[in-house]
Amino acid sequence: MFEAAELGRTLDKSDYKEIVPELRTSLLDLQQELGNCDFPVILLISGADGAGKSETVNILNQWMDPRWIETTAFDEMTDEERERPAFWRFWRALPPKGRIGVLFGSWYSCPIQQRIEDRFDDSELDLMLRRINIFEKMLVDDGALLIKLWFHLGKEMQVKRIKKLRKNPATRWRVGERDLAALKSYDRFREVAEHVLRQTSTGEAPWMIIEGYDERHRNVTTANHILEVVRKRMTLDPMTLRGTTSAWRMPHERDKTILDFLDLSKSLEKKRYRKELAELQGRLSVLSRKARQRKVSTIVLLEGWDAAGKGGIIRRITGAVDARSYRVIPIGSPTDEERAQHYLWRFWRHLPRAGRFTIYDRSWYGRVLVERVEGFACEDEWVRAYREINEFEEELTEHGIVLVKFWVHIDKDEQLARFKAREETSFKQHKLTEEDWRNREKWDDYAHAVNDMVERTSTEFAPWNLIEGNDKRWARVQALRILCERLEQAL
Amino acid sequence: MFEAAELGRTLDKSDYKEIVPELRTSLLDLQQELGNCDFPVILLISGADGAGKSETVNILNQWMDPRWIETTAFDEMTDEERERPAFWRFWRALPPKGRIGVLFGSWYSCPIQQRIEDRFDDSELDLMLRRINIFEKMLVDDGALLIKLWFHLGKEMQVKRIKKLRKNPATRWRVGERDLAALKSYDRFREVAEHVLRQTSTGEAPWMIIEGYDERHRNVTTANHILEVVRKRMTLDPMTLRGTTSAWRMPHERDKTILDFLDLSKSLEKKRYRKELAELQGRLSVLSRKARQRKVSTIVLLEGWDAAGKGGIIRRITGAVDARSYRVIPIGSPTDEERAQHYLWRFWRHLPRAGRFTIYDRSWYGRVLVERVEGFACEDEWVRAYREINEFEEELTEHGIVLVKFWVHIDKDEQLARFKAREETSFKQHKLTEEDWRNREKWDDYAHAVNDMVERTSTEFAPWNLIEGNDKRWARVQALRILCERLEQAL
Repeated sequence: MFEAAELGRTLDKSDYKEIVPELRTSLLDLQQELGNCDFPVILLISGADGAGKSETVNILNQWMDPRWIETTAFDEMTDEERERPAFWRFWRALPPKGRIGVLFGSWYSCPIQQRIEDRFDDSELDLMLRRINIFEKMLVDDGALLIKLWFHLGKEMQVKRIKKLRKNPATRWRVGERDLAALKSYDRFREVAEHVLRQTSTGEAPWMIIEGYDERHRNVTTANHILEVVRKRMTLDPMTLRGTTSAWRMPHERDKTILDFLDLSKSLEKKRYRKELAELQGRLSVLSRKARQRKVSTIVLLEGWDAAGKGGIIRRITGAVDARSYRVIPIGSPTDEERAQHYLWRFWRHLPRAGRFTIYDRSWYGRVLVERVEGFACEDEWVRAYREINEFEEELTEHGIVLVKFWVHIDKDEQLARFKAREETSFKQHKLTEEDWRNREKWDDYAHAVNDMVERTSTEFAPWNLIEGNDKRWARVQALRILCERLEQAL
Repeated sequence: MFEAAELGRTLDKSDYKEIVPELRTSLLDLQQELGNCDFPVILLISGADGAGKSETVNILNQWMDPRWIETTAFDEMTDEERERPAFWRFWRALPPKGRIGVLFGSWYSCPIQQRIEDRFDDSELDLMLRRINIFEKMLVDDGALLIKLWFHLGKEMQVKRIKKLRKNPATRWRVGERDLAALKSYDRFREVAEHVLRQTSTGEAPWMIIEGYDERHRNVTTANHILEVVRKRMTLDPMTLRGTTSAWRMPHERDKTILDFLDLSKSLEKKRYRKELAELQGRLSVLSRKARQRKVSTIVLLEGWDAAGKGGIIRRITGAVDARSYRVIPIGSPTDEERAQHYLWRFWRHLPRAGRFTIYDRSWYGRVLVERVEGFACEDEWVRAYREINEFEEELTEHGIVLVKFWVHIDKDEQLARFKAREETSFKQHKLTEEDWRNREKWDDYAHAVNDMVERTSTEFAPWNLIEGNDKRWARVQALRILCERLEQAL
């Protein structure tokens, strides 16, 4: 795989001098155009030590306008990063649409390094690579242009380079112990790297290997490659990116949904409710303190019909947890910073620190509910969202987060009654909008969307809990009980 | 000062039961109304241990809609926080307009604690309190409603409380060593607290002392206080907040400005420029590595006329620094998340981590330049901004950040020549907008604004550097030299 990058290609000085001015102009033009484009460019920089990674990134920053490039290197994790799933730090660094983000090391450094040091085996490595493939596909599906550059330097060249650096007193300091160690484990590094590149060179995000030895050749090759692929991406018709057909079977109107099988007559009489609620809140209070101590984070998300009583459940939960330990995130329309990112970005940013609760009032499932039904997302987008969401939730739970998902169900009559009651109560009037009435008209479409959602995203690690909500007391007690049980299992 | 909060006020159960439902409705209504208001509510919770701080916050969260309250407790600093000035963590937690942010402990915990433990003396404490006063005034001037609640518990009550907790097996665990230690140092605590409250009970942000012993009385008093002051704030005419008169002397048209005294004929011949530039970039490169090692952060900000050559200077700086160590922040119109905060918030969020460079291409000085001249900020706002900015910069430099400020100056003819040249060069066309031509018409107004800015914000810790920019080579070399010298002093 690397042989083609060990040919000793060079570019002589006079050619370089001739090429560079034009190249710079093209790069600046490109950047300017990119500012008006609806996709981000994510440039991953990986490769062998000494193959000129940082030098090339510096040159790119010099040739382009550094104001519109964000370069991020991933050194040691900060403690805020350590308290979240591994990919949180990468989500933080993703560039918004119209910008270039240079990610140094990125999500490849750690798997390669860990494998070389035998801190995990081949199958563990492959699991991580599979996750990377899915993550990258998700970004590309959303429109991102992912450019993955691998800077290669053959062993001989590596030796030559170190000798050269050592000879010159001005550069001698640059040869550290790390370089010598890297040289020692070179063969192992090459082997692992080749495996990683093979497994992750996909149709949507192929690797480009760049011969690292000759600086001029390396710079020009890199710049040309970037120019070429960004230009190509710009000429793509947005419609070809948004596939509109899929093998998705649209539900028939008369199909029953999973919601039809819920027994909405379930209820709880007032006295028993009070007793059970007090008991459950006591339990939850103890559990939340234990979770805080043990640094186990919890995410609760609530979906459900308008007026289904999500807010009431949330208040029964927060009522039992210390205010310093939870945050409620109401999901409405995204801010413009959120709109400039992948749709999952706004949820990643609110992930709790260790030991805390985050409660999402509506959630990432908007993608397969309101966005699907109202056509805000095209079929292609919401169809693939099921898988993206499952991946996301798997990452959360693998990090040890307790994830509890509720759909609060009521029937159409109950909703109408509540809407009417709201119109009459002064301080709840604000809760009723025209949109609520409009959504009501699409009841069946939503029911089918819920059915598909549960079918596709109720997983072993993050099962859906359908709550019968016609009786508010029943619903609250049910939700609290499930939450307590899940926490007890986890703690 | 605390005597009035040691009267043993109570509220009996039946009264409480009668009052609470109405209180809750009022709070919910208030929150709803607040959502449409153009100011945030910042609720600071401080006071003695055991005086019911967290219990009351929990009750407030129960009575109100927890979706629109963000509660933040300030425990130990994370490493990301430690790498920034002390107030960074508080800026992070400020609620946006229309929301309530509950800050637990807030900026008062640390000064009080440190003084009690004699980790600094009275004069150091007063210095911190002075800073707090200025910070709070700044928030209030911007429209924020700052509610400062101090929960008090007299010594006798404190003893009584601990005895009571210890008696009951269910609550015994709540009495920790910390409580006993706090009891021991109670008198000292009271003394320091009283001093702090006196020094920081200002007209714009007075303290409200709440008697902590009786839970019911405490909850109702707190809720009523919040209701009252938020309502009062809502009825204030926005115009009375925005004072429009001040003792500011508007410049006469013919007044000379500081810019008139710059010698724009200064220039550098090409060969010498190349030599000096290479030398300075080499120096800067070494210095930036040293700064990274020593964890000294640097902020460079550039202001100047359109087409003055700020971008060129930035590229000469970044060209000498490793891309992993800097970030360039171009300041354009704020995002909607930024607009919902104090105008300095968007600059705080980008402060560099330890050892890194942040380069602001335009900056917080927009407040006293474009916003002043174009009338985006009223006189009251930009007049007080000079002081706010000085405070901000003092905080930066006190944290050890090297702050270097450049105004790049050219004259009107030079600007015209550059505008015209830009119109002719393909890839620079985008840099010229109608706004640029409009700004040009207000040249004199801007010049006076620059004059005032330099006069008022060139401080010992953060002096302005005026760069003669008609000759780009001269300007670049000057800026680099100043930057190097400042870094050398600091390292």
